[in-house]
Parts: sequence; structure tokens; C-alpha cells
Amino acid sequence: MHHSAAFTEISNLLGDRLTQSKSDLDLHGRSESHFPPMPPEAVAYPETTDEVAQIMRICASHDCPVVGWGTGTSLEGQAQAPHGGLCVDFSRMNKVLSIHPEDMDVTLQPGVTREALNTELRATGLFFPVDPGANASLGGMAATRASGTTAVRYGTMRDNVLGLEVVTATGEVIRTGTRARKSSSGYDLTGLFVGAEGTLGLITELTLRLQGQPEAISSAVCAFPDVGSAVACVIDTIQMGLPMARIELMDPASVAAVNAHSDMDLPETTHLLLEFHGSDSGVTEQAETFGEIAAEHGASGFDWATRPEDRTRLWTMRHNAYHAILASRPGSRAVVTDLCVPISKLAQAIEETRTDLAQAALPGPILGHVGDGNFHAILLFDEGDTAATERAKEVHHRMVQRALALGGTATGEHGVGIGKRPYMNEEHGGSWGLMGQIKQALDPQNILNPGKLVPPRN
Amino acid sequence: MHHSAAFTEISNLLGDRLTQSKSDLDLHGRSESHFPPMPPEAVAYPETTDEVAQIMRICASHDCPVVGWGTGTSLEGQAQAPHGGLCVDFSRMNKVLSIHPEDMDVTLQPGVTREALNTELRATGLFFPVDPGANASLGGMAATRASGTTAVRYGTMRDNVLGLEVVTATGEVIRTGTRARKSSSGYDLTGLFVGAEGTLGLITELTLRLQGQPEAISSAVCAFPDVGSAVACVIDTIQMGLPMARIELMDPASVAAVNAHSDMDLPETTHLLLEFHGSDSGVTEQAETFGEIAAEHGASGFDWATRPEDRTRLWTMRHNAYHAILASRPGSRAVVTDLCVPISKLAQAIEETRTDLAQAALPGPILGHVGDGNFHAILLFDEGDTAATERAKEVHHRMVQRALALGGTATGEHGVGIGKRPYMNEEHGGSWGLMGQIKQALDPQNILNPGKLVPPRN
Repeated sequence: MHHSAAFTEISNLLGDRLTQSKSDLDLHGRSESHFPPMPPEAVAYPETTDEVAQIMRICASHDCPVVGWGTGTSLEGQAQAPHGGLCVDFSRMNKVLSIHPEDMDVTLQPGVTREALNTELRATGLFFPVDPGANASLGGMAATRASGTTAVRYGTMRDNVLGLEVVTATGEVIRTGTRARKSSSGYDLTGLFVGAEGTLGLITELTLRLQGQPEAISSAVCAFPDVGSAVACVIDTIQMGLPMARIELMDPASVAAVNAHSDMDLPETTHLLLEFHGSDSGVTEQAETFGEIAAEHGASGFDWATRPEDRTRLWTMRHNAYHAILASRPGSRAVVTDLCVPISKLAQAIEETRTDLAQAALPGPILGHVGDGNFHAILLFDEGDTAATERAKEVHHRMVQRALALGGTATGEHGVGIGKRPYMNEEHGGSWGLMGQIKQALDPQNILNPGKLVPPRN
Repeated sequence: MHHSAAFTEISNLLGDRLTQSKSDLDLHGRSESHFPPMPPEAVAYPETTDEVAQIMRICASHDCPVVGWGTGTSLEGQAQAPHGGLCVDFSRMNKVLSIHPEDMDVTLQPGVTREALNTELRATGLFFPVDPGANASLGGMAATRASGTTAVRYGTMRDNVLGLEVVTATGEVIRTGTRARKSSSGYDLTGLFVGAEGTLGLITELTLRLQGQPEAISSAVCAFPDVGSAVACVIDTIQMGLPMARIELMDPASVAAVNAHSDMDLPETTHLLLEFHGSDSGVTEQAETFGEIAAEHGASGFDWATRPEDRTRLWTMRHNAYHAILASRPGSRAVVTDLCVPISKLAQAIEETRTDLAQAALPGPILGHVGDGNFHAILLFDEGDTAATERAKEVHHRMVQRALALGGTATGEHGVGIGKRPYMNEEHGGSWGLMGQIKQALDPQNILNPGKLVPPRN
């Protein structure tokens, strides 16, 4: 152990809330994705901001890496510990501190999960809209700039965090933002910490925007003859200014997987999954307008879900799609891709990906948040099949190059972590170096989540 | 002249587009607000990014300050030159480079003004919604994180800039963001440069989100018995989730000023100015719902403006209100305040301000973007009346302290510049120091707009 002196001090502070048990280290070294385990050397379970600040000061004095942990559901290895050190698990900092219904905001600790928050909000008539699928912690969602199915309407974490409390690399506790709806008071530090993946500080408190629960919600699924016509329908819908709450695509392979996994019987063709939020008449009008646009693009088989339990079934199916796709080939592992392109290039990006996958003889079901131009191909290969693993990585590389050439990004919502770091230079050029300069200024010892996001230190 | 060697080199590059004429220096040293003139030593008119990069490298090699200039309409002295040096006037970089109607975005040079952009967009069915009143340049609006009357619906510049091209302190040209609608690829540098007021780099190109022109627009003005009832109406409206495009307050003194200046005859009581955007039926439904809420709060005298020319007259009146208020007391100058608080605290913040103004015997008409919790009191005093000037500054100081105590910010939309810098430590504490660390990392020579926003260097 390199950092036993640090752990002794932290153990004096936390007692048995500092652990080095093998099961805890294993749990905090894993990822939801294809990366090998990278366990920390110890796991701390702080209960207060002051404890986090003290932990940070101890780690700084011993040059010990510090990696934040929410629920471990990120997909690019953001919470793994390639340089060992301490994992700070925020699961005990899970309190909603204050709800302000009049201002439609909430202040809470980072370990609160989005489902727990929405349960707590139910009586207020408000909800927190960002929904990445997994029941992630809100601290982790902020750190990774999460988004998901509702971003087309409500934005990503970038748009829904009003302010933060952060413990910096030196153990100082700072606050960014206010509860005001807007501010032009200096650099947007809230925006800088959101998406920084714990490389600039540890988030210990968040103030989030909330939304009023819509008077009416209506969901639907409908079938299209092919991916191109579904995407053309999405483009027309967005351009009409129709305020879609969700608009999701599943290609035939994805539909086949969810049919098997979630006991559905959708025709095995391309589908859009939709949701409308608004007043009763507004939702009716939106649905009618969408129906007209969809019909022009050959849509059929509209199946409406207006009862809450039917909507829940539909979106649970969508949220479980990744696991359904993995289960469609037992023993397989996956490279999850996450391109986001200008919407006019979306059909081209998807079609070229499908051609590439066919030529590489790789299964790669496609689904995505097409209202934002964001889609995932789940590149499947059998565990241990090194040739197929290589082909998956090569397809991924070409997909990223295609997205960049089309004016897009390698990662619409999953973040950088370990998996997308090899593409940062290609995507950002000199800007990546500038990210490194900011990191160097705020964490000169490089103890905050080292090995992630920014360029390696010389 | 301290920097004549730099200006000689820049003159070799630009010819007569580098000027030291007195009229040019005077023009670029003034502000729209109460600050004394602070002219630069020379003004450059670059036409290309490459010229800006060369200028920046020359200035870096001579330690010469560089201040960006759009239209000079900022209100906190952001474009003045307290340390002299070079003013870079972007008025010749005023081309719209590419419009992508399908993706609803536009790429343009920083000198394009918002009115010029909207004229150019007219045929596309799209518009750029951010409207600070002044016909500011879009580069300046991004640099100061401008907002204005439509932010309640469409957000501020923070929400509407997709990507930037920036010349850094070393003269490197970098790009931030992409044309994709969202990204989780690394630090949000776009958000860092938006609102940095030219202290981290010079913006040489912007990609902006556009909106579809609404099918229907309806504006109205209505009267309330007092400020409290108008604000209570706004709170209820926001909580109902009514998607107001604009919701503006004018107190009786502001109404009196615009009546005189814009040849209106509104009753001299508190008013709300409104605008609804949507489908025909949507706008009708919104207006009806708003009418019901307003009636509960004692509103009367609804005057609807559905014809374009009537709407233009209404919003021109609002945009000219600052000048109307100045003109209401010939020979007076003004401290413009810019508080933004959580909306539940808005009535309290305005009422306490009115009491404070009455006790200080200072005229201070109040108007604001109340849907965001943002309001301005225009503190008037006769030029040369030092006692009244002092009282205005004291009232401003107390207003800021009140806003911070209520969970708000000293500056909702005008920025920091020179005027709000004295309040930065109080508002941000340790975060202000962190802004200084970022500034030190990206501009170690402190040549980019020195004397603004960040803490003074030791």
C-alpha cells in the first residue's frame, strides 16, 4: 500500500467508515462497461462536507489520489481507480436538504438518487426531469454532465444545476452559483464543475432546478419502414417547434432485443418512442401534429399509452434496452458508442454506422435520443474473442471520426473517463491542452481522479 | 505611450486599420453608464481571425493590454481600458458565415449585431431570441453573458451558444464545442468563455442556437394596484408552467418616464408587459390562463397588441425605458442596479429597495425581467452632486447585500466589469479566488482586459 499513512489518518477521522475490505474494493473498482477492474486501495463513507474537506486535506498532504463514487453506473470508467488511492463513496450523504416549491428548486447532498428525489418531490407537484435511465446519484449525474431521454425538452445536467458546493484539491469548501435563475457574475464555475468528472473538485451539495408536473402526459410508440424515414420524421418534428418531452429511436435489432427481454411484441422494424407533456389540449394538439408529420414519413401502428402504468412499462423497456441487448447474446461484452451530431447529419451517421457494422460482421443494435442527434450503437463481441474485440474498437474509432467530420462529438452524454480519452485530442485540438492548463491550476498535485479526461501530465 | 513598439508592429500588419486618432480613442474609452472615460492607447480593426491572432501575439510579446470592443453598449465598463493598451474593435468582422436551417444554428463573426442577424434570418423562418434591448454585437453579448426580456423563455447567452472560436492570450486559435446539440466531452470551455468578459480570450467566431419563428405572437400590457400584486401574479404564472416569452415589470415611476419619452398614456401605476409565443390555439389558451391569474391579483386595463407594429411600439418603449428614465431628469446620471433573486424573494427585494430609496430621498424607477427574478432600479442623481452620488452608491451597496442575503446575485445580466467587481468577494468568497487561479493559468501576463472581473494580482 502506497498510502497507508493517509488511510490511518482518515481511519482516525471516520472509524469503520474507512474500509479496505476486499469486497468493498472490488465493488468500487468495477464499471458497467467493458473496462477491466481498477480498484481503489481504500473506500471512505463521509457523512458531512466537513469530513470530505478533512479527507481531501489528508490526501493532499500524502499525495493520495481521490476518486468520487455515486452509484457506479457511469459507462466510461469515470469512477474506477487506475492509480489506486481513495474512493470517496457519497452514499451516506443522501439527504434532501431543502425544497423551495415557490422557486422550483431543491438543495440536496450528492448521494441522493434521481428516483429518491422524485419520490420525495411527489407531494409538491414538482419533479426533476433529467433521466439517464440508471437510478444514478445526482452528484454523479452532475459530475458526468448526464442527460438521457428527456434532454430534448428539459436539457442536460448543464441546464439544470443552479449551484454547487465543492471541496477543492486543497480541501477548501467553495460555493458556485446562487438560487437566482440567472447570473452574469463572473466565470461560470458551476458549468465548469458539471462534467469535470471529479477532476477539479468533489461535489458535496447541489441546488437543482425543478419542473412542474405536467397537467397531461401522453406516450406512444410507432413503427417506420426504415431508419431514414424515422429520422426524417424527427427532423420535421423538431423544426416545427413541437415541444417533445421524449423522442427516442430503436432500430430493428434493438426492438428484437427488448421484445425478448421485456416481453413485448413490437414488429421488428424501426420504432420511435414518444412522450408529450403539457396541458390537456396542448398534449392533444401536439399528438395530432406529430401524427400528421409521422404519417407523411410512412409511420404506422401507433400504440398510445396514457395510463401511468402503461407509460411506466414503455419507459422501463427503454431504460432496460442496454441490458436487453447484452442479454440477446449471452456471454457477450459491449463497446457502447455515444455519437452526437447535428440533426441534419443523423440519418447519414446512423446509415454509415450500419454499413460499417455489416462489413465488420459485428452485431450492433442502435438506439438513441434522436431529438438531440444522439445515438448509441452497442457493439457486441464474445468475451475472449480478441479478433472481434479489435473489430469493435476499429468500428468505434471510425464512428468517432465520422461524427467529428460531421460537426459532432464523440460523446453526447456518457462522458470521457477512460474510454473516450483517446479521442479528446482529435475532437478538441488546442482546447484539450487548455483543459489541462485549468486542471494544472486547480489540482497541481494531480490527485483528483488522475488518469481521466485531461491530457497526461509530462 | 508605453506600447508604441507593439503599435508599430500592428500598424505594419493592419495599415490604417490601426488608429490612434483622438476621436477613435475617445469613442472606445466611453461607457453607457456612469464611469469616467478610460480610453485605450490605440484601436485595431481586424478583419480575420488570423489578424486577431497576430495582434494577440504582438501584444503578448510587448506586455500590451488587449480589450475587445463590440458596440460599447455594456453597462459595467467591460470594454473600457483602465490600463490603456489596445482596443480590438470587431466591427469589421461582421459576416454571417453559415446558416443551417435544418439544424437551427448559425455560425457568424463576433461583430454581427443581433438585429443584423435577425434581418438576415427572416427568410428562413428562424430567429435568434436573446434580446438585451441594445443592438449589441453577438460577440459582446457572449462575452458578457447577456440576456434581457426573452430569457424567461429562451435562456441567456449561456444557453444559446453552441460553440466558439477563441484567440487565447498566447495568440493560439482554439475551438470549443461543436454543432451537436449536447456533449459531455470534457470541461465546458464554451460556458467558461461566455461571461468571461474578454479576460480569458477574444471570441472570433460563434455558433448559436436558433429558434423557429412562432406561428402566433401576442403581446399585452396590464395594470396592477401595486408592485406586490404584480409580482404575486408573476410567481403564480411561472409556477403554473405557463411558457411566457416575456414578462416585464415597470413601477409607477418607470411608467411616468416612458409616458413622457415614448408618447404613451399608460395610467401611472405598476404594469406588467407580456408576450406569448406558440401555436394560434396555444397562444389563445396561454393568454386566457394568464388573464385569469392576473384578475385574481387585481389586474385591469388589458391592452392587447397582436399586430406587428403595435408589438414593435410596445417593446421599443420598453427598450428605450433606460433612456426615458435618464431623460426624466435632465442633467442627471445613473447607477444602474441589476439584482436577481429567487422569485419568492422578489417582492421583498423590490419593496425593501423602494423603502430604502424613499429614505435616501433618491429617485430610482424600477423595472425588470421579473419572470427571472431580475430587476433594475435606476438610481438617479444630478451630475456633480457628490452627496447624492454617495447616497446612490450606498443604496446600491445595501441592495447588493440584500440580494446576497436572499440567495441571489449582484448582477443578473449586466456582468461584472469595473462596476460590480467590488462585490465579487462578498458574493463568491473562495470561488472568486478560484476564478483568479483560472485567469492566472490562461493569461499569466494579465494582458486580457486587465482590471476587470477577477481579483487584482498581488
